[in-house]
Amino acid sequence: MAGDLDTAAADQVRADDRAHVFHSWSAQAHVDAIPIAGGSGSYFWDYEGKRYLDFSSQLVNLNIGHGHPKVVQAIQEQAARLATIAPALGSDVRGEAARMIAERAPGDLDRVFFTNGGADANEHAIRMARLQTGRPTVLSAYRSYHGATGGAIALTGDPRRWANESTGQSVAHFFGPYAYRSAFHSDSEEQESERALQHLRDVVQLQGPDTIAAIIQESVVGTNGILVPPPGYLQGVRELCDEYGILLIADEVMAGFGRCGEWFAIQHWDVVPDLITFAKGVNSGYVPLGGVILGPRTYERFADRPYPGGLTYSGHPLGCAAAVASMKAFEDEGILDNVRKLGETVVEPRLQQLKDKHASVGEVRGLGMFWAIELVKDRQTREPLVPFNASGEAAAPMGAFAAACKKEGLWPFTHMNRTHVVPPCTISEDELTAGLDIIDAALDVADQHTAG
Amino acid sequence: MAGDLDTAAADQVRADDRAHVFHSWSAQAHVDAIPIAGGSGSYFWDYEGKRYLDFSSQLVNLNIGHGHPKVVQAIQEQAARLATIAPALGSDVRGEAARMIAERAPGDLDRVFFTNGGADANEHAIRMARLQTGRPTVLSAYRSYHGATGGAIALTGDPRRWANESTGQSVAHFFGPYAYRSAFHSDSEEQESERALQHLRDVVQLQGPDTIAAIIQESVVGTNGILVPPPGYLQGVRELCDEYGILLIADEVMAGFGRCGEWFAIQHWDVVPDLITFAKGVNSGYVPLGGVILGPRTYERFADRPYPGGLTYSGHPLGCAAAVASMKAFEDEGILDNVRKLGETVVEPRLQQLKDKHASVGEVRGLGMFWAIELVKDRQTREPLVPFNASGEAAAPMGAFAAACKKEGLWPFTHMNRTHVVPPCTISEDELTAGLDIIDAALDVADQHTAG
Repeated sequence: MAGDLDTAAADQVRADDRAHVFHSWSAQAHVDAIPIAGGSGSYFWDYEGKRYLDFSSQLVNLNIGHGHPKVVQAIQEQAARLATIAPALGSDVRGEAARMIAERAPGDLDRVFFTNGGADANEHAIRMARLQTGRPTVLSAYRSYHGATGGAIALTGDPRRWANESTGQSVAHFFGPYAYRSAFHSDSEEQESERALQHLRDVVQLQGPDTIAAIIQESVVGTNGILVPPPGYLQGVRELCDEYGILLIADEVMAGFGRCGEWFAIQHWDVVPDLITFAKGVNSGYVPLGGVILGPRTYERFADRPYPGGLTYSGHPLGCAAAVASMKAFEDEGILDNVRKLGETVVEPRLQQLKDKHASVGEVRGLGMFWAIELVKDRQTREPLVPFNASGEAAAPMGAFAAACKKEGLWPFTHMNRTHVVPPCTISEDELTAGLDIIDAALDVADQHTAG
Repeated sequence: MAGDLDTAAADQVRADDRAHVFHSWSAQAHVDAIPIAGGSGSYFWDYEGKRYLDFSSQLVNLNIGHGHPKVVQAIQEQAARLATIAPALGSDVRGEAARMIAERAPGDLDRVFFTNGGADANEHAIRMARLQTGRPTVLSAYRSYHGATGGAIALTGDPRRWANESTGQSVAHFFGPYAYRSAFHSDSEEQESERALQHLRDVVQLQGPDTIAAIIQESVVGTNGILVPPPGYLQGVRELCDEYGILLIADEVMAGFGRCGEWFAIQHWDVVPDLITFAKGVNSGYVPLGGVILGPRTYERFADRPYPGGLTYSGHPLGCAAAVASMKAFEDEGILDNVRKLGETVVEPRLQQLKDKHASVGEVRGLGMFWAIELVKDRQTREPLVPFNASGEAAAPMGAFAAACKKEGLWPFTHMNRTHVVPPCTISEDELTAGLDIIDAALDVADQHTAG
């Protein structure tokens, strides 16, 4: 496969990319995107034949791995049958996807509003919450990511703007539990949970309980560090919400659909939120799809009064067909079991070993196929290996670590001073071990930047 | 194909839909979505074998019609090859789609930032404009639609929020040209253009020219009435923008990609905007895809400083493969020519006839495959057939018109007191004539609600 032809193809991809593609979250002149020719399972490869073990699941969306034949086939068949239909018309795969998601959702959550991705799922969840409660404010955590939209409805100059634009709407941020860097000076997980709940109660009371529509919370915080809530925390948030008539929105865009070994991460703690938002893993991003799962109380608010929101591709048949096929494959192939088993028996013990071995490893944490290795300059002071939100030269130690991984054929997910171990949920034990070996070796590079 | 099996299938679709699907812009208990079994070209059909001529192009996105074989094949092949890859990696079809769009875009617009749809395209366009100019305000028209997102970035509790959230950001609305219901008491298209420009200049001056980042304008206003700008208007907006260093954003989500007989509607007036937003027609919504087209000045602002925005599915290979195939099919099959020819020789003369014939028709207007029939109670007073933003009983006359169309096998696009003639750009002359015959007959129903 190597040779002139592939080099020419790669050159063309590079040329088109540099001349015509504007990239997410990037200084455009510094983007050098590696042309990718294909992928299968836990691997993808470039045009020169170099293969990468995908420890990022792309952007933690590829839960079922690259090129899963059943999902590919479902897309192909649906494309031939009916690629798209407007939201107001009925679609078999849309209804089937909604039913399957509802069947897997906790508690009485039984309906799905489909969106194109995670950001608009959160958009609609907070809209529903504000309208259901009649309250303007939403609380969300520092160290969270809930999407990057924030303005289009304000531009709109027709009645669809009216219910959505209010100068009174606001967001306030609180600190969630993060025992390794506690905002509450706590000494244990139990104390961290108690103090985080007390802090959240203080914020609610001072912000004004009657003004708060919802608390939105990643069930397990994703990009900002794989922060697994300590026992009791999510139950405490649920109780606080109930006490004040506040809705609990669980953002499961990254943590849901198998990533944590359950359909929804929040099921680990037996908590039923009022709304769940999802995207990514629902169909591994083979087709853009996201959504909000809601229950009877939210439905009732909009049973006879129109819900003032929507989008052209809500419930897109191609995305829904991929979701149906993916959920079935997860069950037929025991993928949730694979996540639980390999998380406990392979990832966790190995990461503990890495912590013991490498001076640069401050903490390892996670569950399922959702793990973080937090790198530090000094294990005593816990000073991060690179400063918060660093870029350029200041971030060079993390760049060196990532380069070492890539050189050995592993594609890592790095963010600030962390690398996340987030491979496809379908990964095999051998692949996982091979990947962790590469991480192990690359940590030698990180170790060189420690104080010791 | 008819019989027990199909009825059972339709029943299942209906049951799933009612129990589990939450619908866009709807009072949920009143939704009765017709289960759709398939579609081809200008038609789609239900499970009982009833066929509808699609005069809506679903939500004015299906420019190439249902089930176009070349687009279906491109999706199937890309799904097998590489359904998705992260935005930071290179993709051949993403680069090819960006290059083809850049080649068709006016002036020096040569790069594409891909999104999932139209709303997030506008989100990113105004973000780029605010950062490029360092100004907080965006002007948009009344009677416009630019999407329905408005909050997710405010929820986000990490540095990705910083560049996007500012209490100083605002939107102000102005009136655009709409000769039939002039906000400026004008007597002619020429006067409407002049006075609308004077009004916009007044708004700019009183709002504060140095505070205005951009004016966003649908090149031809879509859902709010197919308002074709009078000669000189868009040129005048361009000049006003240049005078004050304001960026012009052309929202071509609905008007672009062939709908008006050009790749971009604004090309009718030889105006080059600073940013173009698109979605829908780029690949007919076979796969969710949208984007922003930008030129060197916007690029330069983000060449060495990161652009603070992005999304997991930016430049999704499946969506881009469909876009490439669709653009090629448009050219191979002369679809732009079809739009121009049938718009001029079939739609326009027939709509003029309908206006002469039916007391309920106040005005007809449009271009290409983008036309509105505005219905009135009284042609003298121009009182709309149903009140602005009416629902329920007050909107019944429009409901009766739509029902008459559907009964005869035509799926109309109705909005407030208008029906839009917006079939696929691939429609044949015979199909178009057959559809207009049905509209003609259904207008008899509307006529019964006129004052005469």
